[in-house]
Amino acid sequence: MGMTMTQKILAAHAGLETVKAGQLIEADLDLVLGNDITTPVAIKEFEKFKVDKVFNKEKIAIVPDHFTPNKDIKAAEQCKFIREFAKDKEITNFFEVGQMGIEHCLIPEKGLAVAGDVVIGADSHTCTYGALGAFSTGIGSTDMAAGMATGKCWFKVPSAIKFVLKNKPAKWVSGKDVILHIIGMIGVDGALYKSMEFVGDGLEYLLIDDRFTMANMAIEAGAKNGIFPVDKETIGYLKDHAAKEWKVYEADADAQYDEVYEIDLSTLRPTIAFPHLPDNTRTIDEVGDVEVDQVVIGSCTNGRISDLRIARDILKGKQVKKGIRCIVFPGTQKIYLQAIKEGILTDLVEAGAIVSTPTCGPCLGGHMGILAKGERAISTTNRNFVGRMGHVESEVYLSNPAVAAASALTGKITDPELV
Amino acid sequence: MGMTMTQKILAAHAGLETVKAGQLIEADLDLVLGNDITTPVAIKEFEKFKVDKVFNKEKIAIVPDHFTPNKDIKAAEQCKFIREFAKDKEITNFFEVGQMGIEHCLIPEKGLAVAGDVVIGADSHTCTYGALGAFSTGIGSTDMAAGMATGKCWFKVPSAIKFVLKNKPAKWVSGKDVILHIIGMIGVDGALYKSMEFVGDGLEYLLIDDRFTMANMAIEAGAKNGIFPVDKETIGYLKDHAAKEWKVYEADADAQYDEVYEIDLSTLRPTIAFPHLPDNTRTIDEVGDVEVDQVVIGSCTNGRISDLRIARDILKGKQVKKGIRCIVFPGTQKIYLQAIKEGILTDLVEAGAIVSTPTCGPCLGGHMGILAKGERAISTTNRNFVGRMGHVESEVYLSNPAVAAASALTGKITDPELV
Repeated sequence: MGMTMTQKILAAHAGLETVKAGQLIEADLDLVLGNDITTPVAIKEFEKFKVDKVFNKEKIAIVPDHFTPNKDIKAAEQCKFIREFAKDKEITNFFEVGQMGIEHCLIPEKGLAVAGDVVIGADSHTCTYGALGAFSTGIGSTDMAAGMATGKCWFKVPSAIKFVLKNKPAKWVSGKDVILHIIGMIGVDGALYKSMEFVGDGLEYLLIDDRFTMANMAIEAGAKNGIFPVDKETIGYLKDHAAKEWKVYEADADAQYDEVYEIDLSTLRPTIAFPHLPDNTRTIDEVGDVEVDQVVIGSCTNGRISDLRIARDILKGKQVKKGIRCIVFPGTQKIYLQAIKEGILTDLVEAGAIVSTPTCGPCLGGHMGILAKGERAISTTNRNFVGRMGHVESEVYLSNPAVAAASALTGKITDPELV
Repeated sequence: MGMTMTQKILAAHAGLETVKAGQLIEADLDLVLGNDITTPVAIKEFEKFKVDKVFNKEKIAIVPDHFTPNKDIKAAEQCKFIREFAKDKEITNFFEVGQMGIEHCLIPEKGLAVAGDVVIGADSHTCTYGALGAFSTGIGSTDMAAGMATGKCWFKVPSAIKFVLKNKPAKWVSGKDVILHIIGMIGVDGALYKSMEFVGDGLEYLLIDDRFTMANMAIEAGAKNGIFPVDKETIGYLKDHAAKEWKVYEADADAQYDEVYEIDLSTLRPTIAFPHLPDNTRTIDEVGDVEVDQVVIGSCTNGRISDLRIARDILKGKQVKKGIRCIVFPGTQKIYLQAIKEGILTDLVEAGAIVSTPTCGPCLGGHMGILAKGERAISTTNRNFVGRMGHVESEVYLSNPAVAAASALTGKITDPELV
């Protein structure tokens, strides 16, 4: 019986010829990732291993991105704790404020996750690197600790769902809409502990940034990971960024899938997830009249240069509606610089948006754009759970950057075609 | 007996021919200012006046700059409260995120404070507008409430100290160094409830941004206000910015001063205030070996374009030392745009600094750069009280932007001449 792409990667990292769904394996790790919230917990667990060193000081990445620049004293203490750990253990990839970005934008940009890797990260959106053909998944701080100590992690080999993407999406339909459509279709537990493998000729129209967005949100369908085949687009990105060698794995022709969905991308519309779950989706045509107080453009889901370009295309020369806060979060310092270079930040600020440092910020109710009681945001982020961006009686609507930017101009959720 | 410049302005606004130090007067207000921390308190007091309207909807300015973009739910609720008040009272000058800046950079830029004005603000650094030849002072939220209701405020007419500034300051000596030198000389209560009137031929070398910095910190010597004569430099600024007519007041030749200090600017050196008071000053030559963890460049004291230019001149083409956080806060969105236009933000980010939205941020321990226990910052802000930027066991050193930027390169307090 053949293996899925994910199974092939896991088998290779477990030193096995084959694996099958449900099997427990121990795999070698190519990268262990943590942030300023999860790493302090992991360090305390790591100390219980009574080892002097981490397994490999170049295969650990620590990115203080959630509450930085330090939001408060607690955040400052946590960052200090992980900074001192990184220094003590000589961890190469500790990214200080000023050198950093949102972890899931930064890690691929720095070439630290590549095709064929097994990556674990103490952050649920670690699944992002599946866009590059890696097996990449979010784990808890205890697994991060064990990973830092041993370089290995136990996994139950996941079964998979195959999504066959066909045809070219229409204008304003991006990877975000594809993944929101899929989550709306299968539900937030529709891929529980499974791989979401994205294939099909429609991939031709999904650039690497679209794929990052899609893999990033695999967890929102409960998936263990999301993964894309390595094609010309992937290779192009890896050639520009990879800091190490990559390896291409392909699903066997006779790989078994729990389910196979065919999706005609040309039929999709810009899609919005209504409160309070990512699967509560409607197309832009079904939205009705939804006023918003705040627009958030950025995050690990949609904070890449292509996302900012789209927002700029819509906002340039226009004005954010009076009374609406439009907050833009570039994913990394490099993206920030590129956005300056292309005149994007100027266009956005002239339109009345405000540009934050790269940080997870309001996405998780952290800082830099928290909602009051009764307030409503449209956001390019990944989760709209109750209270996710602030008060338990606030609301978050998830969309692509074009819809978010268009909504900033009108103060209500708006089809970008109409502005 | 003649009047000081401040007394002349107060007399005119009280409808009196003359006033003298110590006299209680009621003056008409040209502007009443509040921020996101003080305005909610003022609104609750305002409601006790049982009036339907504010005295003049164009003479009130509300700037949510301290904890915005909303740091947390409490900040969000406060901003919502003042936003709704501003809408209800049709207050013209409510500055939403995206249109705003740090209040004391924004108000002059918008031309809302001009020469001859009487301005009160529920923020201690409201004294900033003395740079433009206005009488401008910080008051409590209750006075803000009364000011919004009546357009008037009671004052005890201050006596004055005259500072006669002579000669040209050396390179790297800015308005920040002049005011730190003065505060170091007279102490944090050296001008208690008095006017600090700055005069002399040395003003020729103090551009408007230097004067904003100096007037801004008058409160750090306990002064009621700081004020500068209106000269060619002032008129130039007013012509570019004023949104209303201005009026020039001059001190009488026989005005009385409690004290007169002559300061030879050519003898000053870059000056640093050590913890934990702004009067604990040393020149850069007396600093010794002081390592820092964080560098803050910005704030209502030094977040103007000239400050950013100085930081850029020092950081361009170099790298912030590994492990040091260098956080830059442009004063307003307009300054932010200008800094992009001049390539400053690119140079700063390429050097490893991070650029925040305009916000008061870490200056008051608000957000975006809070210090952990034992950490140390050099900062271009205005106060270094115990715990001001975070943990009670953290330390803040105050300096000009050149010293701060130079220190970012070395990780210790450094003479800009040496980098």
